[in-house]
Amino acid sequence: MHKGVFISLEGGEGAGKSTQHRRIIEWLTDHGNLVVEAREPGGTAVSEKIRSLLLDTRNAGLDAVSELLLLFASRAQLLQEVIRPALAAGKVVVCDRFTDASYAYQGGGRQLGAATVAVLEKLVHQDLQPDLTFLFDMPVEQGMSRVAGRGQADRFEIESIRFFTRVRNAYLDRAAADSNRYVIIDASVDVDQVWTQVQTVLEDMPGL
Amino acid sequence: MHKGVFISLEGGEGAGKSTQHRRIIEWLTDHGNLVVEAREPGGTAVSEKIRSLLLDTRNAGLDAVSELLLLFASRAQLLQEVIRPALAAGKVVVCDRFTDASYAYQGGGRQLGAATVAVLEKLVHQDLQPDLTFLFDMPVEQGMSRVAGRGQADRFEIESIRFFTRVRNAYLDRAAADSNRYVIIDASVDVDQVWTQVQTVLEDMPGL
Repeated sequence: MHKGVFISLEGGEGAGKSTQHRRIIEWLTDHGNLVVEAREPGGTAVSEKIRSLLLDTRNAGLDAVSELLLLFASRAQLLQEVIRPALAAGKVVVCDRFTDASYAYQGGGRQLGAATVAVLEKLVHQDLQPDLTFLFDMPVEQGMSRVAGRGQADRFEIESIRFFTRVRNAYLDRAAADSNRYVIIDASVDVDQVWTQVQTVLEDMPGL
Repeated sequence: MHKGVFISLEGGEGAGKSTQHRRIIEWLTDHGNLVVEAREPGGTAVSEKIRSLLLDTRNAGLDAVSELLLLFASRAQLLQEVIRPALAAGKVVVCDRFTDASYAYQGGGRQLGAATVAVLEKLVHQDLQPDLTFLFDMPVEQGMSRVAGRGQADRFEIESIRFFTRVRNAYLDRAAADSNRYVIIDASVDVDQVWTQVQTVLEDMPGL
């Protein structure tokens, strides 16, 4: 059992995770927590190089299994260098995406299936799970239209509506199966209304 | 069942694989085979980027599991882009290192164990194995002294004699367990004597 608190943020494209991530960090810091921020894929020197490979639209022919393995390679390094030491030191880790994203994007979106993702999860962090996962949920069309306004899309953002529907469904299935860890946030409303939902959860969370 | 012939070359550092690789390609071409060369990690655009990560001595803190996942990510891509299409077209694939190297270096050298490597092998290429594997074997000290003469060592070459002893033992264990696929070549002798051993095997191999 780790001493710190591990919070992960999940959701499809355009769900407003980044804005809420900043507010969560601010809230946690204001409430006297030592906070470590991370994002996936990335968060270490090696993991950021892997991130570049994964997001680069020139790697359009990337095999789905190769993609999944790269994500877990990045994750293994982030766990070793950042997450495990921070939790051992009693800090609060807030990670923008974690293994649930692999279940949603590769297991669901790419249709590799949950069992394949579970094999890698077991290999890389069988002992360690987030204490709390925010799922920022909204209709797929709404998320996609938000992303469309941002400019240059990355290798994931250019996927189809059917892909993102599978991603959303995989997230919702996981949330339904583990309601202790997951909190579903209605991300279709405006940013302050989203934050109100998040803040209520943080206020009720033991150890923060 | 694939139609082509899949040959892999294995062995520790300094075993002379590269020289024999060139001679094998030449021999196969001279004997009328359509030959595809590959090396691991690498062999595709994405895999070569992964190779750079793996060999870079600046990535000294690379987690062993992350290393193993990167190798299999590179391998999945190489299989999809190069090896499977070549074998389906009836070509001869000669690959400098394949999954046996993960058993030797990460399973043995890094002490992750064979069972961990087997999980990834099953995920990535349960259905496909080399038809013939040359293991270029020599005493560890001899290989290391050859490498020492080459100049700048990469992230694997700077490992210790104990590491390479574990690598060699893991290779020999695998060869002993599958003598149908493996041929152990005595690589401690001079390059032409090594080649004589290799050539004898090629001449006896059906389909070449």
